[in-house]
Amino acid sequence: MEKQTENGPTTNTIPRPTNPMVTPLLTDLYQYTMAYAYWKAGKHHERAVFDLFFRRSPFGGEYTVFAGLEECIRFIANFKFTEEEINFIRDALPGTCEEGFLDYLRQVDCSEVEVYAIAEGSVVFPRVPLIRVEGPVAVAQLLETTLVNLVNYASLVATNAARHRIVAGKSKMLLEFGLRRAQGPDGGISASRYCYLGGFDATSNVAAGRLFGIPLKGTHSHAFVSSFMSPDEIVEKSLCSADGSTTCQDFVGLVHTWLNKIQRTRLSIGSFGDTNLSELAAFTSYALAFPNNFLALVDTYDVLRSGIPNFCAVALALNDLRYKAIGVRLDSGDLAYLSCEARKFFQAIEKDFGVPDFGTMSIAASNDLNEETLDHLKKQGHEVDAFGIGTYLVTCYAQAALGCVFKLVEINNQPRMKLSEDVSKVSIPCKKRCYRLYGKEGYALVDLMVGENEPAPKVGERILCRHPFNESKRAYVVPQQVEELLKCYWKGSSEKVREELPPLKDIRDRCMKQIEQMRPDHLRRLNPTPYKVSVSAKLYDFIHFLWLNEAPVGELQ
Amino acid sequence: MEKQTENGPTTNTIPRPTNPMVTPLLTDLYQYTMAYAYWKAGKHHERAVFDLFFRRSPFGGEYTVFAGLEECIRFIANFKFTEEEINFIRDALPGTCEEGFLDYLRQVDCSEVEVYAIAEGSVVFPRVPLIRVEGPVAVAQLLETTLVNLVNYASLVATNAARHRIVAGKSKMLLEFGLRRAQGPDGGISASRYCYLGGFDATSNVAAGRLFGIPLKGTHSHAFVSSFMSPDEIVEKSLCSADGSTTCQDFVGLVHTWLNKIQRTRLSIGSFGDTNLSELAAFTSYALAFPNNFLALVDTYDVLRSGIPNFCAVALALNDLRYKAIGVRLDSGDLAYLSCEARKFFQAIEKDFGVPDFGTMSIAASNDLNEETLDHLKKQGHEVDAFGIGTYLVTCYAQAALGCVFKLVEINNQPRMKLSEDVSKVSIPCKKRCYRLYGKEGYALVDLMVGENEPAPKVGERILCRHPFNESKRAYVVPQQVEELLKCYWKGSSEKVREELPPLKDIRDRCMKQIEQMRPDHLRRLNPTPYKVSVSAKLYDFIHFLWLNEAPVGELQ
Repeated sequence: MEKQTENGPTTNTIPRPTNPMVTPLLTDLYQYTMAYAYWKAGKHHERAVFDLFFRRSPFGGEYTVFAGLEECIRFIANFKFTEEEINFIRDALPGTCEEGFLDYLRQVDCSEVEVYAIAEGSVVFPRVPLIRVEGPVAVAQLLETTLVNLVNYASLVATNAARHRIVAGKSKMLLEFGLRRAQGPDGGISASRYCYLGGFDATSNVAAGRLFGIPLKGTHSHAFVSSFMSPDEIVEKSLCSADGSTTCQDFVGLVHTWLNKIQRTRLSIGSFGDTNLSELAAFTSYALAFPNNFLALVDTYDVLRSGIPNFCAVALALNDLRYKAIGVRLDSGDLAYLSCEARKFFQAIEKDFGVPDFGTMSIAASNDLNEETLDHLKKQGHEVDAFGIGTYLVTCYAQAALGCVFKLVEINNQPRMKLSEDVSKVSIPCKKRCYRLYGKEGYALVDLMVGENEPAPKVGERILCRHPFNESKRAYVVPQQVEELLKCYWKGSSEKVREELPPLKDIRDRCMKQIEQMRPDHLRRLNPTPYKVSVSAKLYDFIHFLWLNEAPVGELQ
Repeated sequence: MEKQTENGPTTNTIPRPTNPMVTPLLTDLYQYTMAYAYWKAGKHHERAVFDLFFRRSPFGGEYTVFAGLEECIRFIANFKFTEEEINFIRDALPGTCEEGFLDYLRQVDCSEVEVYAIAEGSVVFPRVPLIRVEGPVAVAQLLETTLVNLVNYASLVATNAARHRIVAGKSKMLLEFGLRRAQGPDGGISASRYCYLGGFDATSNVAAGRLFGIPLKGTHSHAFVSSFMSPDEIVEKSLCSADGSTTCQDFVGLVHTWLNKIQRTRLSIGSFGDTNLSELAAFTSYALAFPNNFLALVDTYDVLRSGIPNFCAVALALNDLRYKAIGVRLDSGDLAYLSCEARKFFQAIEKDFGVPDFGTMSIAASNDLNEETLDHLKKQGHEVDAFGIGTYLVTCYAQAALGCVFKLVEINNQPRMKLSEDVSKVSIPCKKRCYRLYGKEGYALVDLMVGENEPAPKVGERILCRHPFNESKRAYVVPQQVEELLKCYWKGSSEKVREELPPLKDIRDRCMKQIEQMRPDHLRRLNPTPYKVSVSAKLYDFIHFLWLNEAPVGELQ
């Protein structure tokens, strides 16, 4: 993403955000009123540190997959106002805005900003900063809403995808089919990207395929099936064999021959009556268009009485011409039962007609699937090889938002904290370093936050880890491996070394690997063990000193 | 939107979709595989009719607000492939794609497509087509996913907004604050637009304000408050009076004088101890920047012990200079209790210090509000004037998706239907006309679908309205007013008259007016009366004839 010029400094070539609507105006008005007030008070240059974090993992789970970082860095790298945007801000601010402020905005960019973040695709936990932004308070403040927006949904949907992957197991194909039900066009595109990151194999979303190189999957819908009236409609009936050696002049007739054979033969699993011939026509047409990729949606009329026998007739005709059909998709009904019956049918065909491998035909299932239904299907037993998941996955139906926040933790080297009557909403002050400590078996044991200037925990050395707010919760840990979590992803005009933004595939690999480094009980779907997030003894003491200092003392009257 | 040239035909000037990511590639891969199969079968030009509809209103309600139409029409009006997109499609299709298909795509546009729709902002009901697309089957098919995507979330969030408005009542100010928690950047921008359509007054989202002219609102956050350490930080302390006649050289001192007065005076509601002085500094600074628009977030440290007294000190100092403060925002705690206490405090100030109107100071509330909490607050009694609503509103947390579908109902003048074991999923065949029939009191009574060529229902004439699937549910209706629901919004190259796309404000007005035309029991939050959606006797008979015809007959074995 960044090119080293021959003998000079690095050149910034970070592209703009994927969605052109991500501009400095994609924020809350109050960021501008605050920026104006900071500027009026002469405070806008004061160096501030903000932490972006969440307070609770989604979906009743104990882990979250961090996603959205690349878009945040693209936004920051290209943060600059156009004259039109400045004019709009002038009009949008309440009252009269001094021109000096607009002159200030004209020269604002992120050259004085530094951004430290956990690697995208990491498994992350509550309260640990995912992103730390350091810079002039007015500029950092202007970034808030956009960064939170870009991380919130990305991490939520990536986590949802990872949870689906864990339930489905590694051997199943997981396909994201959510575009039509996503929350807006970009909800769809982000969903495809971040579901892939979280462990899905492919998407139906063509735009996402083009933008991010995600594998694309898809066959046909019910409308295609019902658009056909009868096999007589098919005009071009010839099909060349897979090896090009022969041409079948009447593929439609060949399909009919096979259908009759299936109907006449007393198959080992029973016999079949008439099927829907408009469905047969649709399948035949589809096979003529995609003889190497024949996959049929079999539930438009009746799965077992019509869809499956029709599919088999076409697949057997293709088999005569040395093509191997891919399989079927079920989109309604009892998926466990239907998939098992379909499997029996395919196995009967393999056995009764002597067609090798016909029994292993792929069975895909869709229709309002979610983490829970995947789990139920697994418990019931099924023969589904691939799951197409839409609505519940991409809208994160079980919990539609992750509560990311962006809190001031330091200004002018003074630690700051936000108090709240609700302890879970109290923020952890200070610029911090964050570490993940691993145990003997290679599993992550605890995340530890320490003050910026405290020494790093060392492998093999005992260290006290304290719950930030509960004085009785603490534990000694002797880490076997120590990983520093926050790395520099944007260095402004400083001389620091910046992490590269890896390709999506690498981020996905990181996610898969990180999940393997978690103890399985933390990942459990129901009643998972909480993963510990802690602070050093020194930071603990400081938090509680500052808290007492800031909170007003009550007076009982 | 459309200009009539001097003596020639109309010129299409419908702008592109608001989000540049809405292109012909924003669709499912299977639309392209189907288009290819249609093309291979020589069927792609066949004239098809598709209905876009939903099966159940969201949030347990009995109504939905239709939104997203303008974006659909923008998409259709500009539907055209770039050469780069065509190249991507070639690579994305499985197997080898014939070049002829790509040549076909090169000339595809929507000149042969006609689109009929219900007016955007209308109250709509299950099964009635919101949009009917007529055109070559391959082209109509290519539009499916994008249209469903553009309508689904738009209608869902507009409905959510309308429900919040109904619960809050007309007198409250409703502010949409959801950008940071929305599902992606465009989720945020659409949310702002469609929440305004559904009855909200303003948004915090600057980009949405610019794109759609929605009023913008916002003040400051906790970070602003905690960025200040003490009033000594404030360097520029002077403030000119509202009428420009005098200048207060030490506004900071004036604020302190008022704070001391509040603390020393035994106010009618009690006395107060020390407040947080860093908070006071932040409020004072904000007032210096926006003396005409002073609105303070009062819960950073402690609402009643610190935030409210500090706010009052600043507001009283502003009052000395003839500025009128706007009010406070509460963002945590028991909003009903805190708003009542804040009100008493303001009224005590008005009374004890003789400051007219101080008691009517505006109180805004935020913090995870939703339809239910608004309802609870109303029942408890509160003093909140404005609600800022974010997460639950924009992500439609209570139900994150509306299940819009796009079903083939006719091809080559042959009616088609999709069967399903689940009756609610059976689609209503035929190209239809749709009417809303109104009763004597001006309320909508029933929506009625009839075949394309049936006569329209007439005012004063008795007509039988039947439930489409339940034979025992039917009723005679004598309408006092008949409204045809589907109007032409895109006429392709035909000579038909096309409806204009109205401005957002008009769509919002339509929505408000339509809600008033609904009988209140249909709009009730809990256990609402279902609104009737029916078909003519003739259409009923046809549906059931076709159903029997298409469904395979079972064989008990």
